[in-house]
Amino acid sequence: MEIKDIRYRVDVSKLIPFAAKVLTKYGEDPEYASITANALAEADICGVRSHGFVRFGQYITKIKKGSLAIKNPIEVAHETETTALVNGNNGMGFVISQKAVELARAKAAKSDIAFVSVYNANHFGAAGIWGSRLAGQDMIGFAGSNAERIVSAPGGLGRAIGSNPFSLAAPAGKYGNLCLDISAGAMAQGKIWEYRRLNKPFPPQCWLRPDGVETTDPFSADFAEFIMFPFGAHKGFGLAVMMECLSALLAGGPLNKEVPSLARDMDKPQLLSQFYCAIRIEAFRPLADFIKGAETIIEYIHELPVREGFPPVMYPGEPEFLSRKKALEEGLLIPETVAKEVLGLAEAVDILDGQEVFNQRLEMS
Amino acid sequence: MEIKDIRYRVDVSKLIPFAAKVLTKYGEDPEYASITANALAEADICGVRSHGFVRFGQYITKIKKGSLAIKNPIEVAHETETTALVNGNNGMGFVISQKAVELARAKAAKSDIAFVSVYNANHFGAAGIWGSRLAGQDMIGFAGSNAERIVSAPGGLGRAIGSNPFSLAAPAGKYGNLCLDISAGAMAQGKIWEYRRLNKPFPPQCWLRPDGVETTDPFSADFAEFIMFPFGAHKGFGLAVMMECLSALLAGGPLNKEVPSLARDMDKPQLLSQFYCAIRIEAFRPLADFIKGAETIIEYIHELPVREGFPPVMYPGEPEFLSRKKALEEGLLIPETVAKEVLGLAEAVDILDGQEVFNQRLEMS
Repeated sequence: MEIKDIRYRVDVSKLIPFAAKVLTKYGEDPEYASITANALAEADICGVRSHGFVRFGQYITKIKKGSLAIKNPIEVAHETETTALVNGNNGMGFVISQKAVELARAKAAKSDIAFVSVYNANHFGAAGIWGSRLAGQDMIGFAGSNAERIVSAPGGLGRAIGSNPFSLAAPAGKYGNLCLDISAGAMAQGKIWEYRRLNKPFPPQCWLRPDGVETTDPFSADFAEFIMFPFGAHKGFGLAVMMECLSALLAGGPLNKEVPSLARDMDKPQLLSQFYCAIRIEAFRPLADFIKGAETIIEYIHELPVREGFPPVMYPGEPEFLSRKKALEEGLLIPETVAKEVLGLAEAVDILDGQEVFNQRLEMS
Repeated sequence: MEIKDIRYRVDVSKLIPFAAKVLTKYGEDPEYASITANALAEADICGVRSHGFVRFGQYITKIKKGSLAIKNPIEVAHETETTALVNGNNGMGFVISQKAVELARAKAAKSDIAFVSVYNANHFGAAGIWGSRLAGQDMIGFAGSNAERIVSAPGGLGRAIGSNPFSLAAPAGKYGNLCLDISAGAMAQGKIWEYRRLNKPFPPQCWLRPDGVETTDPFSADFAEFIMFPFGAHKGFGLAVMMECLSALLAGGPLNKEVPSLARDMDKPQLLSQFYCAIRIEAFRPLADFIKGAETIIEYIHELPVREGFPPVMYPGEPEFLSRKKALEEGLLIPETVAKEVLGLAEAVDILDGQEVFNQRLEMS
């Protein structure tokens, strides 16, 4: 069975206010709805589709079930000049992250470095967005989260730890930024949807079935039942453990064996923990010199010779940078299934002008 | 050709002052010689043999060639309450690291978080030592270094970037600490010596020959000519790039394409850059709660079920913790080739009581 790849070409400057209007109608505070729509669009624009509008329905389901406290402000439980412990109050993940980023940057602007630790948070989407926003044009950013258990230990039989994504980012002038966004898993969970949509088998050593047997068939288990291999065996697993320490262990949030599943436990708060660290570059050297050095690193990477049959080497953040440029210039391509879900959710709350946003249907070859 | 595995069982409390005495005789400041001997022993004790006394001769060669400034104190070039930019003055790597760790911990004790950036540094051995020492019993530690180019880019043909090792560590009460110590390479360079000594082939996808062809033969090129695969393709490579940003780019040191080789360019300063970050746990939550949580994470990891044929899962830092315990209780096992080199270097400067340290020769089965 082959499924046709139909997409809508969407103008991002129309999509974001439209999605924000829908979220507001579902009850989210207008400022927060705008942050949420912006973060979902940012993930799609950057090509991190697994964390973009493909999850719009999931967030609205959680709002409807009351398992996301969409009006609670985040609260600083304790702070010093360089640190803050923040209670996310089970708010929308993107909103908590945006506020934590702003707090970390404000503290680092005064004290050169800051570390904000958050508990009672929710899924924050693509880690790279928050690393990049922490970095801005003048800092180094480091952000991470724990997550529901999905990754197996090396040689493990079942779920051991979350994919615990993190991002490290630094400004890079004309190249945007150097931004690594990785998780401990061999493949992001959200990509299962892509493999199903295109009816393609997984690469080997990516997923176990719930019974602990390796599989390449994306339909061989329920979406939420697959178990991820860690990448690089003990290295990926070890990174996940240390991200657990930097997030939940430091924030005092539940350790990830107690974190409910986003997909399976729609009516429970996720109680995730996160961290946001910003380092002001000018505390160490002139910013212009740093940026020039970052550009030098990137130009060096672009000149690296490759073996026959391999594509040119990219810098961390380059796939996102190129995808972003293309999406902003030519419009964002949204899969039909996602477009239809968004339109349906809008119509259900009497927002009927969605066709003006999703107005260009394309059949991909 | 099979090589017999002969080792000496050594009492660490005798080895450290002996090695310090030898280093002092070669001209290192006595305090610094003690730090150096201690760090080399610590690597061996923790089972990270590639960074232990196997490198003793290499350091002494560099001292003799005058390419390590063994008496220069490190200098703080610029500092704020939370940060310091340190000129390592081409001093012995271990000494610079120890001083940078002490500085970062002192600043974090007052300001909750600190970041020390170092240029003009040298090889610091096992990253995990510095992560652990930054952490101590009350902080989270994060340390990393750039390094001479040895890792290829994904699909790359030659040397692209350093292995750029880093460590993340947190105190874990009765289990020592959670301490991840990884580099971007599929295998540490120092391990080539182990494979040669035991005459064993490399695992696949670890090394390229200088001509860009993959090899499993540890004798197929000069030690210093092998090129490493990155682990996890773009993930390992991306980590190396970001460690370059946190070390050399921030410190203003030479980017690693300009870093001379430790093994090949014995008469040049290495001009490495490093970073040392410490985060005070009590700025966020009571230390006892954090430690209890760390122990809970470890006990959870120990209880994870594994697939048939796989060993029990270990926490990051557990191999080092177990090796350390055994070495301190039963003595450290040093390969004969290494023991002979250390003894020879001692005798060359008229230190003749080495047999009292290396007094128990064992033929391993």
